[in-house]
Amino acid sequence: MAEMKKYKAGRMIMGRLEHGADLLEEITEICRKEDIRMGRVEAIGAVSVARIGFYNQDTHEYQFFTIDQPLEILSLAGNVSIKDGESMVHAHVVLGDKEGKAFGGHLAAGTIVFACECIVEILEGPTLERGLDEKTGLPLWNI
Amino acid sequence: MAEMKKYKAGRMIMGRLEHGADLLEEITEICRKEDIRMGRVEAIGAVSVARIGFYNQDTHEYQFFTIDQPLEILSLAGNVSIKDGESMVHAHVVLGDKEGKAFGGHLAAGTIVFACECIVEILEGPTLERGLDEKTGLPLWNI
Amino acid sequence: MAEMKKYKAGRMIMGRLEHGADLLEEITEICRKEDIRMGRVEAIGAVSVARIGFYNQDTHEYQFFTIDQPLEILSLAGNVSIKDGESMVHAHVVLGDKEGKAFGGHLAAGTIVFACECIVEILEGPTLERGLDEKTGLPLWNI
Repeated sequence: MAEMKKYKAGRMIMGRLEHGADLLEEITEICRKEDIRMGRVEAIGAVSVARIGFYNQDTHEYQFFTIDQPLEILSLAGNVSIKDGESMVHAHVVLGDKEGKAFGGHLAAGTIVFACECIVEILEGPTLERGLDEKTGLPLWNI
Repeated sequence: MAEMKKYKAGRMIMGRLEHGADLLEEITEICRKEDIRMGRVEAIGAVSVARIGFYNQDTHEYQFFTIDQPLEILSLAGNVSIKDGESMVHAHVVLGDKEGKAFGGHLAAGTIVFACECIVEILEGPTLERGLDEKTGLPLWNI
Repeated sequence: MAEMKKYKAGRMIMGRLEHGADLLEEITEICRKEDIRMGRVEAIGAVSVARIGFYNQDTHEYQFFTIDQPLEILSLAGNVSIKDGESMVHAHVVLGDKEGKAFGGHLAAGTIVFACECIVEILEGPTLERGLDEKTGLPLWNI
């Protein structure tokens, strides 16, 4: 069965990320600075280069790749929770190239902001902590 | 004109779906168990196989197809409302393959969770019920 | 550094857009009619034709293109803020064709609704106004 927890939401921070910043690291830094431990995150914008991952479900390893060209951030969706005692952002992105073709994956460090408008919604309730899930090999929530 | 209703939000449930579960059915079951009748839903994660639909706007029929390979859930976006007296989840997904190429459509049963982190936001306000819309042939909200 | 402002959320409007409406103009009109000056927006549905843009990061010009076929709206994500004194919707879309292939970009006028279920969340807090950002050439928030 799914394991779900209840939260109170309704407080958000919204703004723009710095040109040239690392997309994942910047959102992570915002969460840590604002002491956001549980949340949801979304963004649109553009990047000058992207680094994204695909999780190999057989070998249990991420395969990372770089798309070294300007791309629109068509969607960034994710959450904030705790890993190793610190706020950790888990986000997936959909990116669009100059012909409109869409790509995407697990957002990794190395994705550089051209412009980005970001929302983080703060969740009040039980803290979810990530630990190794043996079935998938992923750092999932210990619920 | 658009027909819009007003809602109060701010209560969410967040957690992870079970490995091997049917993505659409699991979210639907969560909503019914928690008695969520109006809501919005979002998720990221990965699936081992996907079944998605494209609505043919001429013939007014869904064309379903299966993508039988591991895929990242780059975005899942949708809503919860009432159809035939029960909570019904309407969601669209964007999926990414091992080369980062993106696919997507109307989420159908038969999409199997590898790992999934899901948020359902509960909306308080008027109940929207789905009924046949003659112009499109779709089960749209009778507002 | 990122420049972020704090908001109170929790009021939403949800409903369906009119068949045949212009997707971007309809959402904009809803926001103006409801006097929503700050917000976030999301939607799923389908369009009969799409017009989307890609921002050329070198020339600082949008390149717009039309995809003249029925497409699913796999995701629409964006925000509402102020430009030239009026509510302005900035949204990116991911679209799926009949084979499930995904496309996307900056949503432009000229995208026509087949069916669309839309949520606008109202944010209470500081007004963000768009003005020319010299570094990117984009109308970004003056924070």
